[in-house]
Amino acid sequence: METQTILIKNTTLVANEVRKGSVLIEDDKIVDITDNKSFNSADEIIDAEGKVLIPGLVNTHNHLSMSLMRGLADDLPLDIWLNDHIWPMEAHLGGEHCYVGALLSALEMIKSGTTTCNDMYFFMDEVARAIDESGIRGLLCHGMIDLFDEEKRKGEYKETLRIIEKCHNTADGRIKVALGPHTPYTCSPELLNWVRKKADEKGLKIHIHVSETQKEVEDSLNDRKKRPFEYLEDINFLGPDVIAAHSVWLSGAEIALIKDNNVKISHNPLSNMKLASGMSPVSDMLANGVCVSLGTDGAASNNNLDLFQEMKTASLLQKVRNLDPTVLPASKVLEMATINGATALGMEEEIGTIEVGKKADIVLVDMKTPHLTPYRNPISHLAYSAEGSDVSTVICNGKILMREKEVLVLDEVEVLEMAENAAEDLTSRS
Amino acid sequence: METQTILIKNTTLVANEVRKGSVLIEDDKIVDITDNKSFNSADEIIDAEGKVLIPGLVNTHNHLSMSLMRGLADDLPLDIWLNDHIWPMEAHLGGEHCYVGALLSALEMIKSGTTTCNDMYFFMDEVARAIDESGIRGLLCHGMIDLFDEEKRKGEYKETLRIIEKCHNTADGRIKVALGPHTPYTCSPELLNWVRKKADEKGLKIHIHVSETQKEVEDSLNDRKKRPFEYLEDINFLGPDVIAAHSVWLSGAEIALIKDNNVKISHNPLSNMKLASGMSPVSDMLANGVCVSLGTDGAASNNNLDLFQEMKTASLLQKVRNLDPTVLPASKVLEMATINGATALGMEEEIGTIEVGKKADIVLVDMKTPHLTPYRNPISHLAYSAEGSDVSTVICNGKILMREKEVLVLDEVEVLEMAENAAEDLTSRS
Repeated sequence: METQTILIKNTTLVANEVRKGSVLIEDDKIVDITDNKSFNSADEIIDAEGKVLIPGLVNTHNHLSMSLMRGLADDLPLDIWLNDHIWPMEAHLGGEHCYVGALLSALEMIKSGTTTCNDMYFFMDEVARAIDESGIRGLLCHGMIDLFDEEKRKGEYKETLRIIEKCHNTADGRIKVALGPHTPYTCSPELLNWVRKKADEKGLKIHIHVSETQKEVEDSLNDRKKRPFEYLEDINFLGPDVIAAHSVWLSGAEIALIKDNNVKISHNPLSNMKLASGMSPVSDMLANGVCVSLGTDGAASNNNLDLFQEMKTASLLQKVRNLDPTVLPASKVLEMATINGATALGMEEEIGTIEVGKKADIVLVDMKTPHLTPYRNPISHLAYSAEGSDVSTVICNGKILMREKEVLVLDEVEVLEMAENAAEDLTSRS
Repeated sequence: METQTILIKNTTLVANEVRKGSVLIEDDKIVDITDNKSFNSADEIIDAEGKVLIPGLVNTHNHLSMSLMRGLADDLPLDIWLNDHIWPMEAHLGGEHCYVGALLSALEMIKSGTTTCNDMYFFMDEVARAIDESGIRGLLCHGMIDLFDEEKRKGEYKETLRIIEKCHNTADGRIKVALGPHTPYTCSPELLNWVRKKADEKGLKIHIHVSETQKEVEDSLNDRKKRPFEYLEDINFLGPDVIAAHSVWLSGAEIALIKDNNVKISHNPLSNMKLASGMSPVSDMLANGVCVSLGTDGAASNNNLDLFQEMKTASLLQKVRNLDPTVLPASKVLEMATINGATALGMEEEIGTIEVGKKADIVLVDMKTPHLTPYRNPISHLAYSAEGSDVSTVICNGKILMREKEVLVLDEVEVLEMAENAAEDLTSRS
């Protein structure tokens, strides 16, 4: 196959510094970044005048297929929300629902500038199919729950190994598989130990929810006289390959454990606020050198997948939590949504910044709009004023997924119709 | 002049209940709401299939012209932000800057579904000119600051009276003028007493900032042994015509004073978070029957004017503040952004709901988009997943300001260019 090139010219790059320039893509990689305006030949030329070029955003905690449950139930206590609404619906989920839900989420993510996601759910080969078709990048894991039952545990091992076998390193390397123990309280120590062993053996990442609610910490203290991260340290579970979602209720000692083990944290501010879980001590973790990235969580508790909203909220929530407006500045939340996300997923050599040699995962944001005028500081605008809908063009792995707001890889009308039908089918079964 | 009619058909109305239907507008008013699908004649017919119809949103605290300072400075301590960035720029503001800044804000508000605003700033006749041209509704006041100086005070009286004389009840009644004492600490008791007297005499509203920061409350306690609302009560300033912005730091006794005097509160969650002012006890005020509405504050501390963001953040911030996900449900924040805003501005008989006899201030939100799919509960989608950019059509006072995302009343490209030039001019003077 011949080499394909794309030239993005007249843009403003938000890379190590903010500068005017052009970016040349060859196949799946960035091969040149230049100020040379006369450089003008490529198979495809994108004139990005008035647009800012950033790395594709990285969403480090999601349950993609749950977008079918968006708006199903809100404003409820957590137990009623789960027991009466989410779990009854999940009991009827089939592979086709998961495929369609993931396709809807992929479409939403493309339109709002996210090119990589970290997903935990069920029927993950069906989710992989949606990721493959949509052209984005995904680290996927089967959500393992054994509830301390041996039969269930064996089933979870089997499904996890099936997904690894079937999906890991597929779709030109865009799809990778991780191990997904749900939480320290829904998974037995046996399961967690198996996960740790497999991760070491196969070099896989681990994706887990830890310390989302105050109740989880209290239960852990009651049951084990240890806080969740202390327990995980005790069973030698923690390590640099662990991506811990939420991590809202943390002691200082736990932050030290997170740092010492180089555990990666996925902060989900909008979900934590909507479910009233609490305010994560993100600024304390960052001050201690912890790698904190951003996730949206599933659309059932957000209710969208827009990382621009997540960036703004992450910054503002830390400012008001600390009563200090200097905390978590604009440039820092942009890092959290890009290179920190890439680092969390072990992809920091490939994506997360605009650099020669890296994969071409690139997003253009249109700045010629009232809420981004006047144009002064693009980083401020990206963090505090832009919305997902300002994204105009999205490239992942060197392929143009959306151009000037037209999604090229999926039929938008068809996906919305499939999603409505799948949601209706699910409701009728529940 | 002949009667003009507009029929909006096949829509989903979010009025007292959610229902399918059509709305007939005659001149500036809603004259019929019907389920009759055969009703099909009007000068202009808008087919709103797939769209949800809501009242135009009401933004009860703004400094419109400050959109020229959007992104000028962020992530700074309040005193440095004001002393080194905002005030030096404001010192060079002229009428033309204020006109252009307000025009930019009006354009942004139209595009995100806001049809009424409550504005405090300088050169308010220039702001009125922008509001007039843009077709939206505004309650405008000159921001009065005397710093306890008699000469300054006289100047503020003069400017306030000039603006009332020139602008009150202009633009077919779309523009009204209020009295705008800046704060209880930048205005002398003499000025506040004059404002109270004029408000009673002329039946005007009063727009003031109260208890935005913890420091303001501490200073008030040090200077007067009273908290800000206690002081205002003592000088007989409070009343149902007072719109108090921010009101972040409140004692229980102050909430009772606010309720007893039927003071209207404008809650500005994003600004309060960005400036690290604090978390207003909104749920406590609502539980006590206080009328709380929503404002964006100026774009320099937000950094946009999107009331959809403000609705989501208001709800989520109260949930996490109370660690209770049932607090401030979707339907309540929608009320805050519509009828509560109208009530705050004394316009509840005219706008804020979709009812026969009210002014036709109407917004259509496009639901056929990935982040609003599946379509289950439009109120949940409006509060938790929609963004300003989902607004497709905006009508104010019976006039179509934007149709299918095309702004009809202003030349968007021209306004953006004027704003860039005005911002540049302002920077060069500072």
